[in-house]
Amino acid sequence: MSTDNLKRSWVPTADGHPDFPLENLPLGIFNEPGGSPRGSVAIGNYLLDLTATLEAGVFEGLALEAAQAASENTLNNFFALGSPVRQAFRSALLDVLSEGSRFKDVLVDAIHLQANCQMSLPARVGNYTDFYVGIHHATNVGKLFRPDNPLLPNYKYVPIGYHGRASTLNISGTDFKRPNGQTLPGNASEPIFGPCQRLDYELEIGIWVGRGNIQGEAISISEAHEHIAGLCLLNDWSARDVQTWEYQPLGPFLSKSFATTLSPWVVTAEALQPFRCAQASRDEGDPQPLAYLLDQHDQNNGGFDIELEVLLLTAQMRDTGLQPERIALSNTTHMYWTVAQMITHHTVNGCNLNPGDLLGSGTLSGPKNGQYGSMLEITKGGSEPLLLKNLEQRSFLLDGDEVIFRARCKRPGFTSIGFGECRAKVLAAQVI
Amino acid sequence: MSTDNLKRSWVPTADGHPDFPLENLPLGIFNEPGGSPRGSVAIGNYLLDLTATLEAGVFEGLALEAAQAASENTLNNFFALGSPVRQAFRSALLDVLSEGSRFKDVLVDAIHLQANCQMSLPARVGNYTDFYVGIHHATNVGKLFRPDNPLLPNYKYVPIGYHGRASTLNISGTDFKRPNGQTLPGNASEPIFGPCQRLDYELEIGIWVGRGNIQGEAISISEAHEHIAGLCLLNDWSARDVQTWEYQPLGPFLSKSFATTLSPWVVTAEALQPFRCAQASRDEGDPQPLAYLLDQHDQNNGGFDIELEVLLLTAQMRDTGLQPERIALSNTTHMYWTVAQMITHHTVNGCNLNPGDLLGSGTLSGPKNGQYGSMLEITKGGSEPLLLKNLEQRSFLLDGDEVIFRARCKRPGFTSIGFGECRAKVLAAQVI
Repeated sequence: MSTDNLKRSWVPTADGHPDFPLENLPLGIFNEPGGSPRGSVAIGNYLLDLTATLEAGVFEGLALEAAQAASENTLNNFFALGSPVRQAFRSALLDVLSEGSRFKDVLVDAIHLQANCQMSLPARVGNYTDFYVGIHHATNVGKLFRPDNPLLPNYKYVPIGYHGRASTLNISGTDFKRPNGQTLPGNASEPIFGPCQRLDYELEIGIWVGRGNIQGEAISISEAHEHIAGLCLLNDWSARDVQTWEYQPLGPFLSKSFATTLSPWVVTAEALQPFRCAQASRDEGDPQPLAYLLDQHDQNNGGFDIELEVLLLTAQMRDTGLQPERIALSNTTHMYWTVAQMITHHTVNGCNLNPGDLLGSGTLSGPKNGQYGSMLEITKGGSEPLLLKNLEQRSFLLDGDEVIFRARCKRPGFTSIGFGECRAKVLAAQVI
Repeated sequence: MSTDNLKRSWVPTADGHPDFPLENLPLGIFNEPGGSPRGSVAIGNYLLDLTATLEAGVFEGLALEAAQAASENTLNNFFALGSPVRQAFRSALLDVLSEGSRFKDVLVDAIHLQANCQMSLPARVGNYTDFYVGIHHATNVGKLFRPDNPLLPNYKYVPIGYHGRASTLNISGTDFKRPNGQTLPGNASEPIFGPCQRLDYELEIGIWVGRGNIQGEAISISEAHEHIAGLCLLNDWSARDVQTWEYQPLGPFLSKSFATTLSPWVVTAEALQPFRCAQASRDEGDPQPLAYLLDQHDQNNGGFDIELEVLLLTAQMRDTGLQPERIALSNTTHMYWTVAQMITHHTVNGCNLNPGDLLGSGTLSGPKNGQYGSMLEITKGGSEPLLLKNLEQRSFLLDGDEVIFRARCKRPGFTSIGFGECRAKVLAAQVI
């Protein structure tokens, strides 16, 4: 892999780009004004239109098969191809986009500035599942309710998850209305109805499922990693007051289903390979995972080391020309369960995953101040408002607030890669 | 509507058919051996191939538009058309299939025996949501855990629901493997892994969503009934022991996502019109629904009066030539919330529904012995096994057991219509 790092790209801005150098090559669905949605690869501040690239005749063999699937209006068929085909495609793209490529001249028209394009969801998501593998988040939230015993008894045995709503998965930049809902005011015996008063974000990664499985045939833990197509950033917007009132006994429903925001670029499993790490968040004394979740290779190499950043841009900051303010810095090493464990657990009952299904990690907080992935944790349930540099305060999100996630992979000796942004703004609630 | 009842059909077995007389005309996706899936209408023991019917040139105007959509390989585009178009289609079908129709001769080849056809799912389900509106089920299950206070405080305010898994929705007749999973044995402090030991069924109706809404724009309670395309039967198979261990704090996950079985025929809102009734299960003294869920027309006419029947066919019964044994008789009048209330609540936070989305009612039990919609209720949590006529006993389901749901609408002065069957058999668990 380190040979990747020696290459330079003929595409302006690619070398040294914080997110999209030649070593990343994430996939996404774009359209230019007046065009139709189709597959592309991010490179520097630009993207490579795969349809135009195919027409230029640069691909052959497995890479051609992959490029055809990746040029469609969703990546579902590309995800279905599996890792060997994706690897051939990556190698071909590296050749095509490297300095000295014989294809440079024919591809100049296939390159577009990302700023001139709109992105849409990478895939038609058949099913979206949200997990809860951020152990510090589970602990921090549990402490608000059960200070002495924050983690439930099943947490260190079961990769807890629930089915989420796929129809309100939105691409970054899609603003959304504050949800209305039922809430139970403190001391009241009857609920009221109106706009959510405790609107929050949740810092998560999204996992795009590659090859699927047949219903009734579980994916073993040793094979699960082969089913990861790539990652993105995911904001699981949450209406805390609605959630508190509705969630017993069947879990979160309307408190989560109004909007979930995704970053547009799928950072592939191949690009992330140098940033894999040991499963890091399990403590001495924690129980062994049950046998169906235990694999030595997964324990040694199933983690990801990805730095995650949360920024807030309020309406006042925007109006006064201030930059977004960082309010948290966390990392995917805070996952208690690996992605492979999430996949195996999900299918162990016979449930089938399909290419383009999406898994959320759950909120990825660190254990300390400055590492919390939600307002609920930062403000201790709203009781200790966050003081911003411009002296605004926030217990939860206000209309006009925009939350921005960024992510970066760093490792000595390897070129750093990033995820681009996952951002959306809260609009006023619908009047009902 | 009563004029419908005077008509007779030229299709053999239609008049007096318990499920599919001329007054029903439910839609479903079929294929003959060697053919491709496409839309059809059930009539008696037969079905009418809509592609062949279109080719015969019998439709015009709105009915033609509807028939084209209904002849596709899913009903999603048909569901999107809304009620006026569906009504025009129904009128045209009544003409075409009635005795004396001038189309009889050209349609003889468009009629196939259902027994010779395979059915598939009526729609590509974007999202499946399961509610919990059967108040007697909620009470019966709550009593097992909280004898003095079985219903949670939110039950009579919130139409409780959760997101379900769409990828494991199966058409009737699809047998499935007993799920594997984690469970916590009584008195144990650590879970074990293996085949579910408390496998159950849940008697539900499924609601097919017609026209959808735009994200951020709720469907009002006065308009919600227009978004119901039709109903089916739904078996929400449940692994009780897995559920008990996994469900805190985010609700049921693997305990429900291994299989959900649907009856193949969509009984349309138009066919069900004579069997609407007042919202029946609310007691004097119950709180008024909050304003966004309250509509006088819905209170007076938003219920359904549909008799629901559960039958069990064990391997031993099958081997000894016995018929399935009825183990419960219930009714949709046991729904605490109307379908319109479910739809409005689902969208009130801005969540969008799409044509072909599916809603489950939750288990529809009556208050008495013989009316329970799950083994959990019949056997009081497994403690009082069910004694079958052939002297077999069941606490929960065994491999080889087949559960069959049927449903029938009856009203004096109207022709009775039915739903066909929703059935599937439990196979042995995958060896893991």
